Amino acid sequence: MGKGRLEAFSDGVLAIIITIMVLEMKVPHKADLSGLRPLIPVFLSYVLSYVYIGIYWNNHHHLFQAVHSVKGSVLWANLHLLFWLSLFPFMTGWMGENAFAAIPVAVYGVVLMFAAIAYFILTRVLIANHGKDSTLGTAIREDFKGKISVILYAVAIPLAFVNAWVACLIYTVIAIFWLIPDRRIEKTLIQ
Amino acid sequence: MGKGRLEAFSDGVLAIIITIMVLEMKVPHKADLSGLRPLIPVFLSYVLSYVYIGIYWNNHHHLFQAVHSVKGSVLWANLHLLFWLSLFPFMTGWMGENAFAAIPVAVYGVVLMFAAIAYFILTRVLIANHGKDSTLGTAIREDFKGKISVILYAVAIPLAFVNAWVACLIYTVIAIFWLIPDRRIEKTLIQ
Amino acid sequence: MGKGRLEAFSDGVLAIIITIMVLEMKVPHKADLSGLRPLIPVFLSYVLSYVYIGIYWNNHHHLFQAVHSVKGSVLWANLHLLFWLSLFPFMTGWMGENAFAAIPVAVYGVVLMFAAIAYFILTRVLIANHGKDSTLGTAIREDFKGKISVILYAVAIPLAFVNAWVACLIYTVIAIFWLIPDRRIEKTLIQ
Amino acid sequence: MGKGRLEAFSDGVLAIIITIMVLEMKVPHKADLSGLRPLIPVFLSYVLSYVYIGIYWNNHHHLFQAVHSVKGSVLWANLHLLFWLSLFPFMTGWMGENAFAAIPVAVYGVVLMFAAIAYFILTRVLIANHGKDSTLGTAIREDFKGKISVILYAVAIPLAFVNAWVACLIYTVIAIFWLIPDRRIEKTLIQ
Repeated sequence: MGKGRLEAFSDGVLAIIITIMVLEMKVPHKADLSGLRPLIPVFLSYVLSYVYIGIYWNNHHHLFQAVHSVKGSVLWANLHLLFWLSLFPFMTGWMGENAFAAIPVAVYGVVLMFAAIAYFILTRVLIANHGKDSTLGTAIREDFKGKISVILYAVAIPLAFVNAWVACLIYTVIAIFWLIPDRRIEKTLIQ
Repeated sequence: MGKGRLEAFSDGVLAIIITIMVLEMKVPHKADLSGLRPLIPVFLSYVLSYVYIGIYWNNHHHLFQAVHSVKGSVLWANLHLLFWLSLFPFMTGWMGENAFAAIPVAVYGVVLMFAAIAYFILTRVLIANHGKDSTLGTAIREDFKGKISVILYAVAIPLAFVNAWVACLIYTVIAIFWLIPDRRIEKTLIQ
Repeated sequence: MGKGRLEAFSDGVLAIIITIMVLEMKVPHKADLSGLRPLIPVFLSYVLSYVYIGIYWNNHHHLFQAVHSVKGSVLWANLHLLFWLSLFPFMTGWMGENAFAAIPVAVYGVVLMFAAIAYFILTRVLIANHGKDSTLGTAIREDFKGKISVILYAVAIPLAFVNAWVACLIYTVIAIFWLIPDRRIEKTLIQ
Repeated sequence: MGKGRLEAFSDGVLAIIITIMVLEMKVPHKADLSGLRPLIPVFLSYVLSYVYIGIYWNNHHHLFQAVHSVKGSVLWANLHLLFWLSLFPFMTGWMGENAFAAIPVAVYGVVLMFAAIAYFILTRVLIANHGKDSTLGTAIREDFKGKISVILYAVAIPLAFVNAWVACLIYTVIAIFWLIPDRRIEKTLIQ
């Protein structure tokens, strides 16, 4: 079964998520800069979520370049990942509107963590279908980044109740950490 | 006529439906967990609808793999299916906001039933175009799952007035029943 | 220049238009059928607009099958068509919320007429680029349907002020008239 | 790495931006033309933004025709461009709802300027990857239009505080200036 439609559908969902997140930035009724001030946390949470969706799209793009065929299990592992990402607009809006209050920041981290786990599951399902010795299998065998991210989210979530900004800092550090594209797959593909 | 644009258009519509359903989960103004509590039924109805759209995308994907060409009748049978699916965000929001009250649950079932009928019509139109002895024709000749689903919806809708949760249980059972990808087509394609 | 991206972009815009129109059907707060009653005109105007977008997608699909290459002029003629179609969700919501009052019905007709003119311009630009004796040129030389539609809209718009239902009837008749796919192009392509 | 998914994702984001901008035109509750009057500035700002998104899509289309492969840096330069364009619906709504007041018009210009800079960066990253003597490199070596646009935005933004209509006029002139498709790339491709 071809991977074309899975890629197209995922691109569509990610494109819409990234664009409707902006709808949470409600147009202010005032025409002066004071109207924009309450939107600053909403804007910051939008930027963070935008970067995260960009990272997922980027890594999804890299991952599927090494994929040859997709089975039903891959379709559902992919839909499972998209489910958690589809909650981003809601979480981004809630965290932004409450100016990074403890509980929304913690719940945002929970969604990030489940998305990371869903991505991890997707890679495992793909490896199971392609074999451990396939290009894909050797390229992402260790998946250090995936595992460390989940651990860091698990640390950040309770920390949000101590200091929400520390949790946000950890989310940002993980994002920067992932911004570097997955050279493992690129390297293996070239060899 | 190629099937590429029909697939791309359907993917687009389904990707948007799945993503705007989340907009019915209105961002709460409170920053504590009590703000999330009224969203639990909205979230549950979102999960159910997400799985249903996932199933339709999955089966649509499988179905069109065996399709060689599309005529005007197929385009309209497909648009008819997308019409019923486009009502999902509205129905999901109504059912969720009213915490699975009898009438919204029944009307949700009516939309599910019409979507199932529309999918059935689409398969019949495709078989009529490809011939009963084509790969497609032999693969979905019986369509036991399609027929039994329509019957179960017809049973669940009046039951919603007796007990809405029983109706929801039936919708969930049908969803699980469909989660298994359409091995009939896969099998026939491989032979 | 390839036509692939123009088709993909148009499919995307049409898929989004068709799906966000549904957002104008606001989820009622009541859980009984009386909550749905004020939505009946909104639903009817949604159905009419859905059929119209379906017709445009269908005809666009047929039209571009005979297209070999696109120039800048085609890109802009296409964007011009999409502009008028992008006003459908707004017009559909306005007409539906006011239960087919005279002015919204007339303005709806104006948007329909400009969309029809934009489609007509698009076909002329394509013929200019492909030549009058090309497959495309001979297939849509007369364009009786396009011309008669514009005339009928021009008749229906003032009639909306006399009786809005007569105008709606004319819009519906034109829709049925277009539901028949463009056999001219199909025929010419087969020969 | 193929450019297909980057194009598809960009098309998706631009298609959604163009379509959700229309959602800022709130359906009026009145059924007469007086209900439409406050929407005139919203409509005008929609038209301006629609043309701008059309220009970006057009130029993106032209630009990537000369692109052979994309690296991680291109993916992020492209996401950076899409980020600024994703703010268009918000800015369009704010400018329109406040009937072209000074501050919204100035901030609109700031977003336009950052989008122009992001497009400029994207072309530089592409040239760096393809080489100065590639088709792409020779085609957009000077990029007079890109540079002059950024300068004109920088002039228009402070002018908005003197007279917002002058700033809007400059934005419109730049749009008309860009409406002419990028013949440089087209010419070089044909040779």
